[in-house]
Amino acid sequence: MPPFPGRTIHFAKFNVTSQVKSTFLFAPLPRLTSCHVNIKPLLPGHILVCPLQVKPRLVDLTRDEVSDLFNTVARIQRTLTRVYKTDAFNVAVQDGEAAGQSVPHVHCHVIPRQHGDPGSDDKVHEWLEGEEGDVGKAQKEAGQGEEKSDAVRKHDEWMKDEERKPRTKEEMDQDARWLREEMAKDDEGSGKL
Amino acid sequence: MPPFPGRTIHFAKFNVTSQVKSTFLFAPLPRLTSCHVNIKPLLPGHILVCPLQVKPRLVDLTRDEVSDLFNTVARIQRTLTRVYKTDAFNVAVQDGEAAGQSVPHVHCHVIPRQHGDPGSDDKVHEWLEGEEGDVGKAQKEAGQGEEKSDAVRKHDEWMKDEERKPRTKEEMDQDARWLREEMAKDDEGSGKL
Repeated sequence: MPPFPGRTIHFAKFNVTSQVKSTFLFAPLPRLTSCHVNIKPLLPGHILVCPLQVKPRLVDLTRDEVSDLFNTVARIQRTLTRVYKTDAFNVAVQDGEAAGQSVPHVHCHVIPRQHGDPGSDDKVHEWLEGEEGDVGKAQKEAGQGEEKSDAVRKHDEWMKDEERKPRTKEEMDQDARWLREEMAKDDEGSGKL
Repeated sequence: MPPFPGRTIHFAKFNVTSQVKSTFLFAPLPRLTSCHVNIKPLLPGHILVCPLQVKPRLVDLTRDEVSDLFNTVARIQRTLTRVYKTDAFNVAVQDGEAAGQSVPHVHCHVIPRQHGDPGSDDKVHEWLEGEEGDVGKAQKEAGQGEEKSDAVRKHDEWMKDEERKPRTKEEMDQDARWLREEMAKDDEGSGKL
């Protein structure tokens, strides 16, 4: 059963859809945060974590919302580390338009990283900008060099694969359901359910 | 009086020095977080926020540490917004070596942004990498184009100015003291002291 049966959470023009799981179920804390999978993840496992209440900036959040948001980031990192066998994460908030924010709703990017992945040399942050406005930008830029590095080639392949197979609502629902189940396993293991 | 009289907080090879202020004084919460000014800020007002306990990764932190860390981020953002008249912030954690982390101690970059500043087009994230290893990298790259954009010129000027006047320990102490005082004003104003 979805965590919010019958409830649709709109997230502006972001191409994110399926909610992974509403956040901490520690009574008596209310649910304050949601996680979303991405139709065009910059790298596999790219998740957005956002407050349920639409608030533009970090300073607009209550203490509990900030706490819940970033503890949810850490919580989903535990699961992503296991299921994506990842080494590391970029955790980034573009907080305000001048910092690249295009949607006035706080959202924290959680992007699994691997040594030698196509996001190396902090390229993943360059892509952040393209994601919201022009999803083909990074791909176009990657093709401008004469010789492509392994990282750029991997990125090209990743982007092309995404283009060949844009994720459907069903695929994203499946992805979100899978992550919900995997998070539940970690909750049971940690005794934190 | 400094918040930790006689206490030196080492932060590995990071060129950060003066502690801005230990974090939330809400009783009965212990102090869990510190803020540091930077000897080579990527942009004016660039702050690092870190847990007092040296822990490598976000998932190593307790719930309270995560809560305190990011509420401290929001808290210093309020002050930086006022004193730097800023529009926005990049808030970023390079969480793990494959994500660009070079020091095994969680640290969150808080970087004030302005429309049209030299960090535009997410360049600020490219610089994050150079900051820890090769501080001249961004400057070198900025000089390769035939025509420099306004943003690149501003960055050149900023970097050159930094080179001409590397901040001394005294200057950084002064900067930290100033921010401590300004944060105290906001605390008084918000009734959150």
